Amino acid sequence: MDFEFSPRCQQLQKELLSFMDEHVYPAESVYEAQRAQLASPHESPQILEGLKSVARSRRLWNLFLPHKTEWSDGLSNLDYAPLAEITGRVPFAAEVLNCSAPDTGNMEILTMFGTEEQKERWLKPLLHGEIRSSFAMTEPAVASSDANNIACSIVRDGDEYVINGRKWWISGAADPRCKILIVMGKTDPAAETHRQQSMVLVPMETPGVTVVRNLPVFGYVDREGHCEITFENVRVPVGNLLGGEGDGFAIAQARLGPGRIHHCMRTIGVAERALERMVTRAQERVTFGQPVVERGQVQDWIANARMDIDQARLYTLYTAWKMDKEGNRAAATEIAAIKVAIPKMALEIIDRAIQVHGGGGVSDDFGLAWAYAHTRILQIADGPDEVHRRTVARREQRRLAHG
Amino acid sequence: MDFEFSPRCQQLQKELLSFMDEHVYPAESVYEAQRAQLASPHESPQILEGLKSVARSRRLWNLFLPHKTEWSDGLSNLDYAPLAEITGRVPFAAEVLNCSAPDTGNMEILTMFGTEEQKERWLKPLLHGEIRSSFAMTEPAVASSDANNIACSIVRDGDEYVINGRKWWISGAADPRCKILIVMGKTDPAAETHRQQSMVLVPMETPGVTVVRNLPVFGYVDREGHCEITFENVRVPVGNLLGGEGDGFAIAQARLGPGRIHHCMRTIGVAERALERMVTRAQERVTFGQPVVERGQVQDWIANARMDIDQARLYTLYTAWKMDKEGNRAAATEIAAIKVAIPKMALEIIDRAIQVHGGGGVSDDFGLAWAYAHTRILQIADGPDEVHRRTVARREQRRLAHG
Amino acid sequence: MDFEFSPRCQQLQKELLSFMDEHVYPAESVYEAQRAQLASPHESPQILEGLKSVARSRRLWNLFLPHKTEWSDGLSNLDYAPLAEITGRVPFAAEVLNCSAPDTGNMEILTMFGTEEQKERWLKPLLHGEIRSSFAMTEPAVASSDANNIACSIVRDGDEYVINGRKWWISGAADPRCKILIVMGKTDPAAETHRQQSMVLVPMETPGVTVVRNLPVFGYVDREGHCEITFENVRVPVGNLLGGEGDGFAIAQARLGPGRIHHCMRTIGVAERALERMVTRAQERVTFGQPVVERGQVQDWIANARMDIDQARLYTLYTAWKMDKEGNRAAATEIAAIKVAIPKMALEIIDRAIQVHGGGGVSDDFGLAWAYAHTRILQIADGPDEVHRRTVARREQRRLAHG
Amino acid sequence: MDFEFSPRCQQLQKELLSFMDEHVYPAESVYEAQRAQLASPHESPQILEGLKSVARSRRLWNLFLPHKTEWSDGLSNLDYAPLAEITGRVPFAAEVLNCSAPDTGNMEILTMFGTEEQKERWLKPLLHGEIRSSFAMTEPAVASSDANNIACSIVRDGDEYVINGRKWWISGAADPRCKILIVMGKTDPAAETHRQQSMVLVPMETPGVTVVRNLPVFGYVDREGHCEITFENVRVPVGNLLGGEGDGFAIAQARLGPGRIHHCMRTIGVAERALERMVTRAQERVTFGQPVVERGQVQDWIANARMDIDQARLYTLYTAWKMDKEGNRAAATEIAAIKVAIPKMALEIIDRAIQVHGGGGVSDDFGLAWAYAHTRILQIADGPDEVHRRTVARREQRRLAHG
Repeated sequence: MDFEFSPRCQQLQKELLSFMDEHVYPAESVYEAQRAQLASPHESPQILEGLKSVARSRRLWNLFLPHKTEWSDGLSNLDYAPLAEITGRVPFAAEVLNCSAPDTGNMEILTMFGTEEQKERWLKPLLHGEIRSSFAMTEPAVASSDANNIACSIVRDGDEYVINGRKWWISGAADPRCKILIVMGKTDPAAETHRQQSMVLVPMETPGVTVVRNLPVFGYVDREGHCEITFENVRVPVGNLLGGEGDGFAIAQARLGPGRIHHCMRTIGVAERALERMVTRAQERVTFGQPVVERGQVQDWIANARMDIDQARLYTLYTAWKMDKEGNRAAATEIAAIKVAIPKMALEIIDRAIQVHGGGGVSDDFGLAWAYAHTRILQIADGPDEVHRRTVARREQRRLAHG
Repeated sequence: MDFEFSPRCQQLQKELLSFMDEHVYPAESVYEAQRAQLASPHESPQILEGLKSVARSRRLWNLFLPHKTEWSDGLSNLDYAPLAEITGRVPFAAEVLNCSAPDTGNMEILTMFGTEEQKERWLKPLLHGEIRSSFAMTEPAVASSDANNIACSIVRDGDEYVINGRKWWISGAADPRCKILIVMGKTDPAAETHRQQSMVLVPMETPGVTVVRNLPVFGYVDREGHCEITFENVRVPVGNLLGGEGDGFAIAQARLGPGRIHHCMRTIGVAERALERMVTRAQERVTFGQPVVERGQVQDWIANARMDIDQARLYTLYTAWKMDKEGNRAAATEIAAIKVAIPKMALEIIDRAIQVHGGGGVSDDFGLAWAYAHTRILQIADGPDEVHRRTVARREQRRLAHG
Repeated sequence: MDFEFSPRCQQLQKELLSFMDEHVYPAESVYEAQRAQLASPHESPQILEGLKSVARSRRLWNLFLPHKTEWSDGLSNLDYAPLAEITGRVPFAAEVLNCSAPDTGNMEILTMFGTEEQKERWLKPLLHGEIRSSFAMTEPAVASSDANNIACSIVRDGDEYVINGRKWWISGAADPRCKILIVMGKTDPAAETHRQQSMVLVPMETPGVTVVRNLPVFGYVDREGHCEITFENVRVPVGNLLGGEGDGFAIAQARLGPGRIHHCMRTIGVAERALERMVTRAQERVTFGQPVVERGQVQDWIANARMDIDQARLYTLYTAWKMDKEGNRAAATEIAAIKVAIPKMALEIIDRAIQVHGGGGVSDDFGLAWAYAHTRILQIADGPDEVHRRTVARREQRRLAHG
Repeated sequence: MDFEFSPRCQQLQKELLSFMDEHVYPAESVYEAQRAQLASPHESPQILEGLKSVARSRRLWNLFLPHKTEWSDGLSNLDYAPLAEITGRVPFAAEVLNCSAPDTGNMEILTMFGTEEQKERWLKPLLHGEIRSSFAMTEPAVASSDANNIACSIVRDGDEYVINGRKWWISGAADPRCKILIVMGKTDPAAETHRQQSMVLVPMETPGVTVVRNLPVFGYVDREGHCEITFENVRVPVGNLLGGEGDGFAIAQARLGPGRIHHCMRTIGVAERALERMVTRAQERVTFGQPVVERGQVQDWIANARMDIDQARLYTLYTAWKMDKEGNRAAATEIAAIKVAIPKMALEIIDRAIQVHGGGGVSDDFGLAWAYAHTRILQIADGPDEVHRRTVARREQRRLAHG
């Protein structure tokens, strides 16, 4: 057992930390100022493109990809994990490295399951950061935690697929640069449970695709948007099928594991930053003649934060290692578990940081309320925590039964 | 000991519940739709004025006032408390009854400490719901939990007071109908601790009063606004002093107790509504072949909510009774305690209701994320919970020492 | 609404507090010393009889009884409740007033359902504190939360009932003064669910009654004992039936409500005493140059304790009032709720008190570990908390459905 | 980064697991039965000696030692850690491998700081499991978390040291096989803070050493005992000094780190066993027509237990690795942190396991109440958790200040 990161990973961490110090942190206030000036909340502040070209030039680009590309030989989940944590410290940092969801998962499955034509048309511009994409799985009318519930229909009609359905929480679809949707629906409701679903590529501008509304998260209207989208007799050529008919569930599973690592590690970055802010503020603030950091309960909050973050990080790294070594299936318990454990940890810390910041904490002055809102949603996205706890509990029963 | 409300209070509850059913609940969606159409987030949806005139005509108006007025003989804290709870169920209900903060506290202190001229000019239109007001105490640079920290200066210069300072979280000041600010500052920094502060009435349009910005709460830009305001050589006539010089702290204390009851009871109303939504949703939603309400942890959430709400309500009613019977000073422990206990209770319930609603919970579809954000701020406003817990702990020490 | 206790109740509180100060607190160390000298953990320290006669002479005797007796005109649940709290402060105080479980519930049902002969033989010596009794309902093999599960059989054979079964957690049965068991069993397994059970009076010395073992609670062997008892062809005359055949469930329900109030109020007394000890210790103990009571987290513990106790007390008093006014059935939600809410509150406080006492807290020097163990069992006795939460949740659903 | 245990460690785990299956688990009920027969609670059940000789013969002996001995080449903290976890599953397993506290720490410091004579006389029989030992540091009158507080005096008088003081919670001293005490006291109260203390070896039978009483833990009287001991003019030859005068604090620090790992890993073993029992019981128990394991809250408990244990284990292993690699001083934050994090985790799980077991949980039928009591004490022993959280918080401040 060895807790040291690989030399390559350590080198990349060093480079990424420099990039953050030199470019990303100084850009935070600029980003906010530019965003406040834009006509629409969905437009991109100009500074992002500049940051992206620096990142690309430093080869801090598409690091999430496990495959060999022009930018890298590909990183394992374990080697990428600490880099994802670092990007989690600033809301737009992952995007600057072309490592932000949902593009990452989409690029991953296009790489794995896409035809040459699909790769040429969609994967290439995604890898170059020229367009963005969305992943349309969740539906409003049914509990999304049960893949079986999907109601969206994909029916073959000659050389085309006809799509009808309603999706929501489709993140990224409000970004004007979003050009392509990967839509999950049922091609064969009569097939066995996990062979009913397929995925098709649907260009944003296809007739019948309508963004009905944009869902706020608490009061935040996110730049990328979380859209409710209707599909009414949307027609795409059969060549837009991703993989084969009935492969939808399997592709979704393949997409799931690495994305979980990315999300969790970024959330750990969020928690570290909140802790840092909490300590700083508690040192500066004086009440009743004593810096707040000297108060017993604040010391408890700081210490608990340190312990909880360190445990959460080790747990996620262990999960990444297990995925790399034994495959996603073998790591199913951990992939479900970190989904629950990490946001819970982060929310507690962000909440305590808010408390130490007083009125500044609930407003936008320190990014803490934003962090809270966007971490809270992780307890719901991809199925509520309760469903994942149920999975972990059942696997524990099985583990004990089979020794 | 008798837990039955007085006949008059029961009668008013009945009337208010009818008004809610007939007018307020049906107006909720209209309110949202109208607000979405308005140019500014600080304008009032038209429907409010209609609701206000119905309320006034039914004498469901200014109920919070303990004093005899043209609308009522005045209600005790205990008799008003359950009415405040009912108004808490809908965000704009208290305003419709002319019972919303910060006007309530301001009307209260104008009634108690205002000159005839002040009453004629400001109290009267406030009582008639024609204008609105703000209370400017909290400052950004210092911990607001310690009255001693106030930095805003009020200096007499001939027949005028000159005010300089910076305030924030001044709720209500963004409402175009807000015409008057009650400003707390120091007239005599050399006086003994609790005689340094005074309050002056500052009309919104006075030169030197600048709303610098408006603070969001978890992304929400509230209609009434939470403003950061600078006062630069703001001059008002000496007749605008409220009470005498050095009375500021005492007036603030008088304002505090009843406001605490109002806030806490409304928060209980928020919690009741969240519980109601949680149960309804859990009954409708089916996962893995079972209504969610049959799941053990959801039953625990519902049961805990019921227990916690009922305890919180009794605690607040007891506090109101003690204030009515023995005075605010005698109830100081309870006034501090409910400030901590009630929002904590409500946040837990709202959070569980969000969880049961999935994606709908964090968006604005059920009002839950909004409720969370605006309840969370109560753990910070009027001094963070930790300060109030410290007060309760010290009073407990004293109680045990003196039997 | 009025939170003042009745004059009679206030007078009794005053008298009981004097009795505690003059006799009970000073007896605590004597009790422990005498108990340590006794050959068996189940014998009674001599001092108890002396305390009992003082209590009897002061008419602080059988206060729990709602009926007119030679000692009192009977107290309502609400009037008795604060007296029960006071007795909760010292482990043996309730016994000294002849107000300790399970005798209280047994005397209650003998008064309500007993024949004259049963009253003469068993109720009278119980009321005079000459003998003790047990209530045998819980069984080891089945979940005791479901009355339907009872396996013990009571079969009529001529003029006798023949009892076969195994019970456990039969509190009081190890006391050498325990002379009578009230046994719940099934007389008619074919009847409708709540008419299958009956209760019979079984003298301890009846052949076939065997105390198999005595269950410890967190290592504590209690004086009264928590026994596992087998009944093998135990024969009692038919005149020993309590009420009619099939009345067992109904009698158990009647027994339940008041007992719940007693337990909960005594537990509040336990919590108050733990808080008192916590504050005292925190004032005396100095670490890093500061009394522990000045540390923020300790202040939080004290303040939370104060808030939680006060809410719990109001909740229990409200339940008692509702039982008195509307009957036990109407108060079913509250009777289930306080069973969950009050021990949870108390455990948290006792645990924090233990923490402040360090090594002294987990040993027997301050009675805190004992209090923890005996409060913890309340989350299990009479059915685990989860079952009662389920009841509360279902009643909440029904309440919302029917307005 | 690699989460695989070393081949040697894996081999030892396999051997130890076999030993547990073949010998230790089957001995559990025998142990309890034998103990119940013994005249004193401090005598050893006979079965232990048999188990010890099997363990010795399999070279599963003194595994904790990092140094080369006749039984092993010495294991690193990291390699020993998972073995300690396994022994934690059964209360007496560590003793059977001669790996139980406080002997382990004492053997460790005798190895490191003992003279040849001290080693021959005390270390050798300890290593052979022929005698036992105690470590006398904690004192009743002062907060033991501050080494500076030690009041016990060690005064040189010619060729002897004279010891006066009172210690408590001296674990192991009630075991009739305990022959030697390592006593911490002050030789020079005028020296700088961390050079005032020294350690001396005091044979149990030395005149002036009196075991005043034995402290229970909750209601448990432990076999090894937790003694309060007075030292009245106790005289030992100067050759009994361990290390040099003033070395006491440094030796205590050296003793601390590995002991922390052992305790924490064993506590993880306790938690794993509690989880195992919880799952088993929840599968067997049926209420309202459903196995308890299907209830949502029970699934949550199981899942949370799995997540919390796995995180706690990784945290402790990481700490062990850091100690091995960078030394105890570098791992000071983690050594303080696991002291807090691991017992907290375990208590929650044991408590939920108790709840699932109902009355069986609080009694001694499943070892859960015992486990709770003995894990609870860990939040107090070696200084209360709050002191260690303070350490972690302060080190976090320093870390952030220095990057």
